Amino acid sequence: MALYEDYDLYINNSLTRKKEKFEALKAPNVGMYVCGPTVYSDVHLGNCRTFITFDMVYRYLSHLGYKVRYVRNITDAGHLENDADEGEDKISKKARLEALEPMEIVQKYTLGFHEVMAKFNTIPPSIEPTATGHIVEQIDMIEQIINNGWAYVENGSVYFDVEKYNAANDYGKLSGRKIEELISGTRELDAQSEKRNPLDFAIWKKASPSHIQRWNSPWSVGFPGWHLECSVMSTKYLGEQFDIHGGGMDLKFPHHECEIAQNKASNGVDAVRYWMHGNMLTLNGQRMSKSTGNTLLPGELFSGDTDKLSKGYAPTVARFFMMQAHYGSQLDFSDEALQAAEKGYNRLMQAVAKLDTLEANGANTDFDVPNWRKDCYTAMGDDFNTPILISHLFEAVRFINGAEKACGLSSENLVLLKNTLNAFVYDVLGLEKAGEGNQSDKLDEVVTMLIEMRNKARADKDWALSDQIRDELATIGIQLKDGADGTSYSLD
Amino acid sequence: MALYEDYDLYINNSLTRKKEKFEALKAPNVGMYVCGPTVYSDVHLGNCRTFITFDMVYRYLSHLGYKVRYVRNITDAGHLENDADEGEDKISKKARLEALEPMEIVQKYTLGFHEVMAKFNTIPPSIEPTATGHIVEQIDMIEQIINNGWAYVENGSVYFDVEKYNAANDYGKLSGRKIEELISGTRELDAQSEKRNPLDFAIWKKASPSHIQRWNSPWSVGFPGWHLECSVMSTKYLGEQFDIHGGGMDLKFPHHECEIAQNKASNGVDAVRYWMHGNMLTLNGQRMSKSTGNTLLPGELFSGDTDKLSKGYAPTVARFFMMQAHYGSQLDFSDEALQAAEKGYNRLMQAVAKLDTLEANGANTDFDVPNWRKDCYTAMGDDFNTPILISHLFEAVRFINGAEKACGLSSENLVLLKNTLNAFVYDVLGLEKAGEGNQSDKLDEVVTMLIEMRNKARADKDWALSDQIRDELATIGIQLKDGADGTSYSLD
Repeated sequence: MALYEDYDLYINNSLTRKKEKFEALKAPNVGMYVCGPTVYSDVHLGNCRTFITFDMVYRYLSHLGYKVRYVRNITDAGHLENDADEGEDKISKKARLEALEPMEIVQKYTLGFHEVMAKFNTIPPSIEPTATGHIVEQIDMIEQIINNGWAYVENGSVYFDVEKYNAANDYGKLSGRKIEELISGTRELDAQSEKRNPLDFAIWKKASPSHIQRWNSPWSVGFPGWHLECSVMSTKYLGEQFDIHGGGMDLKFPHHECEIAQNKASNGVDAVRYWMHGNMLTLNGQRMSKSTGNTLLPGELFSGDTDKLSKGYAPTVARFFMMQAHYGSQLDFSDEALQAAEKGYNRLMQAVAKLDTLEANGANTDFDVPNWRKDCYTAMGDDFNTPILISHLFEAVRFINGAEKACGLSSENLVLLKNTLNAFVYDVLGLEKAGEGNQSDKLDEVVTMLIEMRNKARADKDWALSDQIRDELATIGIQLKDGADGTSYSLD
Repeated sequence: MALYEDYDLYINNSLTRKKEKFEALKAPNVGMYVCGPTVYSDVHLGNCRTFITFDMVYRYLSHLGYKVRYVRNITDAGHLENDADEGEDKISKKARLEALEPMEIVQKYTLGFHEVMAKFNTIPPSIEPTATGHIVEQIDMIEQIINNGWAYVENGSVYFDVEKYNAANDYGKLSGRKIEELISGTRELDAQSEKRNPLDFAIWKKASPSHIQRWNSPWSVGFPGWHLECSVMSTKYLGEQFDIHGGGMDLKFPHHECEIAQNKASNGVDAVRYWMHGNMLTLNGQRMSKSTGNTLLPGELFSGDTDKLSKGYAPTVARFFMMQAHYGSQLDFSDEALQAAEKGYNRLMQAVAKLDTLEANGANTDFDVPNWRKDCYTAMGDDFNTPILISHLFEAVRFINGAEKACGLSSENLVLLKNTLNAFVYDVLGLEKAGEGNQSDKLDEVVTMLIEMRNKARADKDWALSDQIRDELATIGIQLKDGADGTSYSLD
């Protein structure tokens, strides 16, 4: 029997604003779509938090026994600088600034994104589709939307008719915005605007002469509107209806609102059953922002090469720090908070290591493993409540730390404790043993220490010890070489 | 002044079968296209050799001062099981066998390919375009070819008219095949065949009901012919004419022959100035083949987990081994050959390390650095002759091994020797210091050795030494813990 049959999962559905019991459309299969990065610059930490959140969701669903198809896209075209369908394409602009072809920009930042995601120990999605990889499919969906009467063509561009759509549907239901308020809050249309209504959004834009990324279409040589790709790629790979759609809070409006409208307008159904939104990351209490300088890149976090931090933190420590907060809550990054997280992380991992050395003595203790295990699943079942899960993990840590080697558990319960703790720490939270990247430094320091011990032995004329150190190191594959300037070493 | 202005480069052009002086179309820019993998299974070593070859070409061109745009594609659709435009699509078939969606297959094997390429220290290409990412562009090129009169539509599929093309051009000029011989060697067309001539090839295929990957087109819901993507993606990113096109020898016919025809038929020009083909890899004297079991996967090579090898070899050693042969020659993989390569690699890298410790003494020796440096460039300028380059590098190795610390070179020549040797070893050949992946093993062995030394010290009641070892390790971040079962350690 799969774990998901034993343990209910409730998800805070952003659409209904209620915690709803999760029922997969076609268990054991689950379809999950997450909006990925626009690859025109280094990924920032706020984005990382979103992707780490949905990595945890993916891990937990998989742990429960679901067979998850996890689709996370790469936006490599069509994302304009502002939401009013104006301004330059972000990738084209960067290509112009760096004097590269747009797809070189895409390659550079996609590789960088993957590297950072790997450092945070996120599992690659099952499919990672690109906007440029789905131009034909986007043209197909535009044709459907036009044929169904929800979009109009103007001068080679195609616009979604929000007012008409809203008369029959509820535009704004995800973000909770009312179309009347949106209209009154919108500045008047320019005389030149092709839109009938300022809220209308482009699903196909005719390319201006300077726009580099462009494709043939029935309406013009142009490019798809940014919102369209996610409607197209989610339904292509997950079906017209699918289980979970995730993304950062900032995408609720207009991006996800437009996705909902496009799906309904093309297929006639609401595509997404559970909408999930990850909350923001702040830095020292302030919104992260490039313009004010209040930002932190993943590389700066790892190296400590920034005035915001006293030192670098291992990616897994940063991941643990993020898991200490619920994904739906705002989280503040600071040096103090990271230091505290590092201590907690070390305590947790030391207990995981100690647990391996414990032996059952068959007695009953006051640590009730089956009940504790149930609490862990209950925490995760309550909208992926990782902070509550972690507090339960620390109940186990306290027991382990206080335990003798013969630890007062039955062998059955000891195995259950080990399996459960390892599953939540490694499989679900996605933590790793830290410091493995530092081992070449440590090796150098230890060998240097041995060379100094040997120097002392030689000064003391303790030739036996001196030779022993040299010979044993040689067995390990470390050759000492004595020269005029002292002793150096080389590795086989 | 860029190095390429000082050092000529001659390339064995597969098209003319002559060594030709390389003249970039628009120096300092160079455009290079290499046929990448079809991502439906683990990349095999023969493919790896091709990609390592062109990585070396890319590195040397960049080293010479060219600004190279290096495009290597991913075939993620349209590659049928045989060349006669019949059989199942390779990726769709694998998707059916593994019960996955085709793009899940693509993701799985693309990630695996990237991982292996990183282990071999290849530099990612500037752009890595996919076939599915260029359906619109492929449709555009098909329309051009039809409009120019070189293709015909039959029952929703589009075929390239080889006989008509050959009357005005020379089909077969790359592979040296004559169309008359090709025709006589081809079995008669089936009565059902849509082709006018057995040599015609599909540039668009109507999808059979079971074919999963399919797109709308003016002719049918179908998919592009495999040969088309490379014509489209090379010219999209490098222009209608570009400098270098590379690939494995096995792609000469029909793949590259068809590319040449498609480019000429659509744009009216010969796209490629220099065609380069990497030769095959054999294993123990036999062709590698899955069906006979005479194969070796990269993972097996690295781990040694195969009956073909006595042990695992570091990726950089395998790379060095490949560089010891000219890319145009067949190369045989065997355990003995790899062991010999490993010795040579170690000798080379030890000399590189020793060179760092040498000091100039201002004298003249019989090692003529400027002349040696020129020989290195002459070797590489002769169609990237890496085996000759390596023989020159070993002239330097012999000098270094024989040198005293005060090494009998002027400081100018010592700097020139260091810079040149490092540039060819690291930048051009792409070698790395091996064994860095083994350092955690070595660290464990060294710490275990120190624990044993401490045990002995305690047995001898040498508390000073015992405490010293514990305290110095703690400073390095290695904590010893004494327990009933002996001493264990943990890393901070």
